[in-house]
Amino acid sequence: MKTIFVIGAGLSSSTLIQYLLDQSEKLDWKIKVGDVSLETAQRKIGGHKNGEAIEFDIFNESQREKEISESDLTVSMLPARFHYLAAECCVKFKKDMVTASYVSPEMKALSEEAEKAGIMMMNEIGVDPGIDHMSAMLIIDRIKEQGGKLTSFQSYTGGLVAPKYDNNPWNYKFTWNPRNVVLAGAGGSAQIIENGRYKFIPYHQLFKRTSRIEVLNYGEFEVYCNRDSLKYRKPYNIENIPTMIRGTMRRPGFAKAWDTFVQLGATDDSFAIENSENMTYREFINTFLNNECLDKTEKSLAKFLKVDLDSEIMYKLRWLGIFKDTKIGLKHATPAQVLQKILEEKWQLAPEDKDLIAMQHIFDYEKDGKKHRIKSSLVVEGRDTVHTAMSITVGVPVAIAVKMILTGVFKEKGVHIPVTKNFYLPVLEELKEYGIRFVEEEFLM
Amino acid sequence: MKTIFVIGAGLSSSTLIQYLLDQSEKLDWKIKVGDVSLETAQRKIGGHKNGEAIEFDIFNESQREKEISESDLTVSMLPARFHYLAAECCVKFKKDMVTASYVSPEMKALSEEAEKAGIMMMNEIGVDPGIDHMSAMLIIDRIKEQGGKLTSFQSYTGGLVAPKYDNNPWNYKFTWNPRNVVLAGAGGSAQIIENGRYKFIPYHQLFKRTSRIEVLNYGEFEVYCNRDSLKYRKPYNIENIPTMIRGTMRRPGFAKAWDTFVQLGATDDSFAIENSENMTYREFINTFLNNECLDKTEKSLAKFLKVDLDSEIMYKLRWLGIFKDTKIGLKHATPAQVLQKILEEKWQLAPEDKDLIAMQHIFDYEKDGKKHRIKSSLVVEGRDTVHTAMSITVGVPVAIAVKMILTGVFKEKGVHIPVTKNFYLPVLEELKEYGIRFVEEEFLM
Repeated sequence: MKTIFVIGAGLSSSTLIQYLLDQSEKLDWKIKVGDVSLETAQRKIGGHKNGEAIEFDIFNESQREKEISESDLTVSMLPARFHYLAAECCVKFKKDMVTASYVSPEMKALSEEAEKAGIMMMNEIGVDPGIDHMSAMLIIDRIKEQGGKLTSFQSYTGGLVAPKYDNNPWNYKFTWNPRNVVLAGAGGSAQIIENGRYKFIPYHQLFKRTSRIEVLNYGEFEVYCNRDSLKYRKPYNIENIPTMIRGTMRRPGFAKAWDTFVQLGATDDSFAIENSENMTYREFINTFLNNECLDKTEKSLAKFLKVDLDSEIMYKLRWLGIFKDTKIGLKHATPAQVLQKILEEKWQLAPEDKDLIAMQHIFDYEKDGKKHRIKSSLVVEGRDTVHTAMSITVGVPVAIAVKMILTGVFKEKGVHIPVTKNFYLPVLEELKEYGIRFVEEEFLM
Repeated sequence: MKTIFVIGAGLSSSTLIQYLLDQSEKLDWKIKVGDVSLETAQRKIGGHKNGEAIEFDIFNESQREKEISESDLTVSMLPARFHYLAAECCVKFKKDMVTASYVSPEMKALSEEAEKAGIMMMNEIGVDPGIDHMSAMLIIDRIKEQGGKLTSFQSYTGGLVAPKYDNNPWNYKFTWNPRNVVLAGAGGSAQIIENGRYKFIPYHQLFKRTSRIEVLNYGEFEVYCNRDSLKYRKPYNIENIPTMIRGTMRRPGFAKAWDTFVQLGATDDSFAIENSENMTYREFINTFLNNECLDKTEKSLAKFLKVDLDSEIMYKLRWLGIFKDTKIGLKHATPAQVLQKILEEKWQLAPEDKDLIAMQHIFDYEKDGKKHRIKSSLVVEGRDTVHTAMSITVGVPVAIAVKMILTGVFKEKGVHIPVTKNFYLPVLEELKEYGIRFVEEEFLM
C-alpha cells in the first residue's frame, strides 16, 4: 500500500483529493491529507476508509519530516512560496513530489539533487500553468512533425463565472484568490514578442492594450498580456518564434473599467494609509483625485477618466459602491487591500453560482506555401461550489501526475514540467474522461 | 590635533574637503580622505600639509576599523546604503559621525547605542535633506512663537543648470547622479496632505500633476511631488498641519515631456532587455509602442501622446536623439539604463557650464484673524566644475556640522537630524558666509 501525502486541503484540493480517494482501492493507496485546520482536512476525506486527515503545520520541522518520510509521494497545494520546505524534505528522504505551481528558483536549484536521489519532482501541472503547457505542446509538436513552420503562438486563460450566473455589469466574480486579481500585472512591464520585435508594456498601459478573441460558442472575450510571455520560448522549444503572447481572458469591457483603479493608483500595495479604518469608500477614491471636495468625487473621477457621468464605465464603478460613505474598517491597509475589500463585497460567488475556466491557444503556421491557423479551445464549467472549474482543472492533472509517477508511467527523475510527449500524451488522454477536452478549429488564412 | 576621516572623494566631497582643509590650521585638524581611487583622494587634498589621501575600501573590515578607530570623527559621503558599515564601526569605537543622507532604518536602530557610547551621529545635513530642514524650521518655529497658526507648508528643491548655461530645449542637464534622475518617483505612490485630506499620486500620474512657482528673479519653475511628504510632519512638529507638500523643481515643460518616458515604460528598471546591445535607439522606443513598423515610430509616438508631430514635446524628444539608428551598445540593460545612456549624451554639463540649486518654502499661516504667506527662497550657482552648487550646498553644511561637533557647540549624543534651534541657528548663520542665504518675502493673502 502506497501513501500519498497531500498538504493543504483548501478549495483547490477538493477534486484532487476526490480523484485520489476514488482510485485508492483499485491502486491500493492511502491518502493522508494535512491542513492547519483538521476540520477542513476531515471534510475533504469525508470518512473514506483509505483516507486520513491530520492537523499539519508546514513550519513544524519534525512533523514535516515525519509525514513526508512516512509517505511515498507528497503533493504540495500550499501557496507557492512554501513549496521549498516540502521539496527539501522530499529530497532528503528520497520521496517523489508534485505541485501545480511555477518552478521557483529554489525548486530549480534542487534539480540535480532530486535526480541523484532518484525522485521525480513534477511542477506546473495544474491548469495555468499545466493544462496550457500540455495542450499547447501537443499542437506545437504536431505542426513541426508535419513540416509546418510556426510563426505565431498566442495562449490565453481566464477564470470567470459561468454564463448562466454571469449577472453583474463587470461580467466578473472572484473565483480564485482575490488578492492576486487585484495585483494582476502590477510591478514590472509585460514582455511579448510580435513579428520578431520585443514589445514591453508597463503596468499602467496593460489594461489599455487589449484585444478580442472568440471562444467556441461562448462568445467574445477580452485579453490582456501576462507579465512574461518570453520565458516559455525555451521550454517550448520555439526560441526563434516571431510572435509569442500569453495572456489573461476577461469579458469585454472589464479591462477598460479596471484600468480606472490602475490609473488612480488604487492598486498600490506599497504603503499603508494612515487612519484607513475611519476613511469611507468615497474618501478613499477621493485621495487619488486632484479634487478637494468630497461631493464632487464622481464628477472628478469622470473628468479624470475623460468619460461622461452616464458612461458604461461610470455605471460599472458606481455599481461597486465606491462612492458610498461606508467606513473601510481595515487598519493600516494599503490601497490594494482597501480595493480588495470593496470588491469582495460585490464580486463574491453566490452559493448557487458556478465558475468557468476558458483557455484558447492560437497557432499560426506556414506549410506548403500556405498560411494556416489552428485554434484550440477549452471551456470547463464548475459542477458545484466544491468541485469548481478551478478545482477540477487544477486537481485532475495533478492527481493524474501522481498516478503516473506511482504506477511507473513517468520514469523521469529530477525537476520537470509537462512539456514533452512522455508527459503530456497520457495526461491529456485521461483528462478527456473528466471533461477537460480541447476543441480544435483549423483555418486557411 | 584631531583627525577627521572623510570617506568618498567624489564630486560631492569637493567643497566639504576644501572647507575642512581651510580650517585645519586654525583648529588643529588633520584631514584624512579615503577613496577607492587614491588619485581622486589625492586630487582633493591637493598637497595640503594637513591632508592625507589613502586608498580605502569600505568593505575591507580591518581597514575600516583601523581608520575609523584612529580618527576622531568620520564623514561618510558614500552612497547612502553603505553608511551603516561606517556607522556600526563608529559606535564600536565611540567616534562621532556625520552624513548628508536620509536616516536609514539601520542608522535609526543605532540611536540608543550611539547615545550610550556618548557619540553624535548627525545625518540629513546636506542640501536636501539638510538645508531644507534648517531653513524651514527657522520659519516654522518663528511663526509659532509669534502666535501664528501654520496651515500649509510647501517645500521645493531643484538641481538645475544656471540660466546662462541653460541652452537646451529641456532646460535641464545632469548635475547629479543621472540614475537617480531617471528613476525619480518610480515605485510606490507619492503621498501628500492637502486641506486635511490625504492625496496619493501613483508614479504614472506624478508628472501630470505639476504646479508652478516663481523664485525671486529667476522666473517660473515647475514642481512635482516627492515620494513621501508626510513623514516630516513628525520631526517638524507639525503633525496636524492641513497641507504639506514636498517636491522637486524643474523648468516649465520638463514634466510633460519627461512623462513620455514614464507612460511608455522606458524608465522600468526591473528587467533586462534581451540583446539590448544590438538594438538601436529607435528600436528601443518602438518596443514600447503598439506599432510594428520602425519607419512610423515618430508618428506612433505622437499618436500615443495625443500630440502633433510639430508639438513642443516632440521637438524635445527628437532633440534627445531617441529616433536615431544608433546602436545602444549596452549588454543586458534595463529600459532605465538604456534611457540613461541616451540622456547622458545630451544632458551632460559642458566644462564651462555652471549648475544651480534652487529651493523655495511656502508657509501659509493665520495670525490675528489674517492670512499670511511667507516665501523663503534660495538660489546658489556653482563656482566651477569642481565647486558646483550641489557640492557647495551639500559640503558646507556637512563641514560646519563637523566643526560644531568637534568644537563642542553641538553637545547632543545619539542619531540626530538638524530640525531644532540648537542645530539650525549656528549652521544657518555660518552658511550665509558661503553665499547660502535665504531671501524672505511676506504677503497678506
